[in-house]
Amino acid sequence: MSAVASRVERLRELMAAAGTPAMLITDLTDVRYLAGFSGSNGALLVLEDEVVLATDGRYRLQAQREAPGATLVVTRQLIHELLTHAAQRGVARVGFAPAALTVAAWQGATAESGDVVLAPADVNVSGLRAVKDDDELSDVREACAISVRALERLTDEIRVGMGEIEIARRLELLMGLEGAPDRSFDSIVAGGPHSAIPHHQPTDRPIAAGDLLKIDFGALFEGYHADCTRTFVVAADPADWQVQIHGVVAEAQRAGIEALAPGVSGRDVDAVARAVIDDAGFGQYYGHGLGHGVGLEIHEVPFLGPTSTNTVEARVPLTVEPGIYLPDRGGVRIEDTVVVLDDGVEILTDFPRDLARVG
Amino acid sequence: MSAVASRVERLRELMAAAGTPAMLITDLTDVRYLAGFSGSNGALLVLEDEVVLATDGRYRLQAQREAPGATLVVTRQLIHELLTHAAQRGVARVGFAPAALTVAAWQGATAESGDVVLAPADVNVSGLRAVKDDDELSDVREACAISVRALERLTDEIRVGMGEIEIARRLELLMGLEGAPDRSFDSIVAGGPHSAIPHHQPTDRPIAAGDLLKIDFGALFEGYHADCTRTFVVAADPADWQVQIHGVVAEAQRAGIEALAPGVSGRDVDAVARAVIDDAGFGQYYGHGLGHGVGLEIHEVPFLGPTSTNTVEARVPLTVEPGIYLPDRGGVRIEDTVVVLDDGVEILTDFPRDLARVG
Repeated sequence: MSAVASRVERLRELMAAAGTPAMLITDLTDVRYLAGFSGSNGALLVLEDEVVLATDGRYRLQAQREAPGATLVVTRQLIHELLTHAAQRGVARVGFAPAALTVAAWQGATAESGDVVLAPADVNVSGLRAVKDDDELSDVREACAISVRALERLTDEIRVGMGEIEIARRLELLMGLEGAPDRSFDSIVAGGPHSAIPHHQPTDRPIAAGDLLKIDFGALFEGYHADCTRTFVVAADPADWQVQIHGVVAEAQRAGIEALAPGVSGRDVDAVARAVIDDAGFGQYYGHGLGHGVGLEIHEVPFLGPTSTNTVEARVPLTVEPGIYLPDRGGVRIEDTVVVLDDGVEILTDFPRDLARVG
Repeated sequence: MSAVASRVERLRELMAAAGTPAMLITDLTDVRYLAGFSGSNGALLVLEDEVVLATDGRYRLQAQREAPGATLVVTRQLIHELLTHAAQRGVARVGFAPAALTVAAWQGATAESGDVVLAPADVNVSGLRAVKDDDELSDVREACAISVRALERLTDEIRVGMGEIEIARRLELLMGLEGAPDRSFDSIVAGGPHSAIPHHQPTDRPIAAGDLLKIDFGALFEGYHADCTRTFVVAADPADWQVQIHGVVAEAQRAGIEALAPGVSGRDVDAVARAVIDDAGFGQYYGHGLGHGVGLEIHEVPFLGPTSTNTVEARVPLTVEPGIYLPDRGGVRIEDTVVVLDDGVEILTDFPRDLARVG
């Protein structure tokens, strides 16, 4: 059975459990996962014995190539045509994920759906996506390997006086040269006091000797994401406070990675890493969760954090990314994309984690 | 009156016309337009005498700085807290744009809204955003000027053998060096046969002598977008067919720009440019609309095309971008961001439109 066919089978088990013989899939990531179609306009109707892909004329050839197992409907009115198809197949009720459809789209579809009822259904495709098959793991691994090679080249190029934006764009160019069609999210480059802002948007501020330089970035490969953060010191020996917080974050990250195992709760992993930072007296300067799943989306289940209800499983790539952010002074985050396998944790973004000097 | 205050006044006129004394605004672009707040998590409640901005703790300082005229509510439950505020102010019914809220968010808010009814309302903020004030025009102008300067530098850097991805990333780096915090959309770089794909995603295909090279890109500045396309010929004198289709597209684009005036329909402008391509016998190779508005979003009203119901107005930046795409051979698109002013059309992306040689 092909990868997408087995994914659809797992979806059908969820549909059966929810009493939903038909599902409308409108989230493009879910469409890609379930049918292999990567165009920017598409929707699926999943029935018990058929998968129907609707897209517009621009994507006819691509849909035929990428989704050979699906019945193809070429139209500008994706949802309407899929519901019409459902009616022709004798389906009276089609489920949809309420987080994946706007009220306007629902109302529009309902007004035109004839006898078919389009109703919210508790069927969660993103949960299906968490555990990766071999091809998916291979793509995440390659996205991470590209990221690491690009960061290695970047550390040779960085110079005092470069702006954060320039550094971000140079890193993205290097990821392109190393084989990534694009970045996996907007690169964060934060120098000096900006490094204390967890999700800083790069500016033209030039980096200066003595700055902490936090770089959070990743490459995209075959639709799969990488996510990695390193913090450097610019053109100087690090100050004592920089060495201190970097050491605490590195220890917290190690502890978090060591705590990963199948069946461990996202709350417990978070707690292990958080305790290291709390014990060092920096708890108030660490205000975010420990990590998140990575796959066809940059942020997906499982989430690791104090209020997480998720569980760590094998073959689920995820990030471990504690940080300490001292307002107006500087911050450190160390982040890797890792995956728990049967024989232990594999670190996919394997780049040195020391407080290295650049520039 | 400040810019945002006058925008809110115009919104209140629409609300009064729709019989909606209170509106919930969840689209982040609309939030930015109406309140000045540019964070990645926020929502507004607009009442007849108050604007309430809800965001989470990460954005407290930014919200205070960017949106001094709004009442600030810091919370993780944006919609719930705004509806609670509405109830406290004695409002019984809050409108929302059905295209800006998912079914899940609507259902969640409704379950917790107490006596306040959250109901779809026909109040269209994106329509308000079309006509730009002086500050907005200045930002679009700067985004376009940065784009042009970057493209000038890129044409000196391009070499035979560079991949499309590398060219895209180099252009984005140059936009950064010229003052753009980021690209305004995913850059399209399409060489040789790829240029025949209207919205090609860059690959590692190296450009070769004799290729058409189509580059569709733009810079972002203060949240405002630029959009520009030029088609070059790589390291060779152009072939006759390349000169021919480029000439037809250039003439169609000139005709489209000349047809722009306040009050002209988006359909009529499209028809003027399309007739040039039809008359030259290439109508079947031009499958998209003529253009779209540009502002806080890369694609916004008005749309220029065969089925457009929009009208061209003064002070509305928009693109004019006809193309001819010969399958498996190559394609040409020429696109400028322009704006109709009282004394004529101003071309904001003013870069030569001839079939120039690069590489």
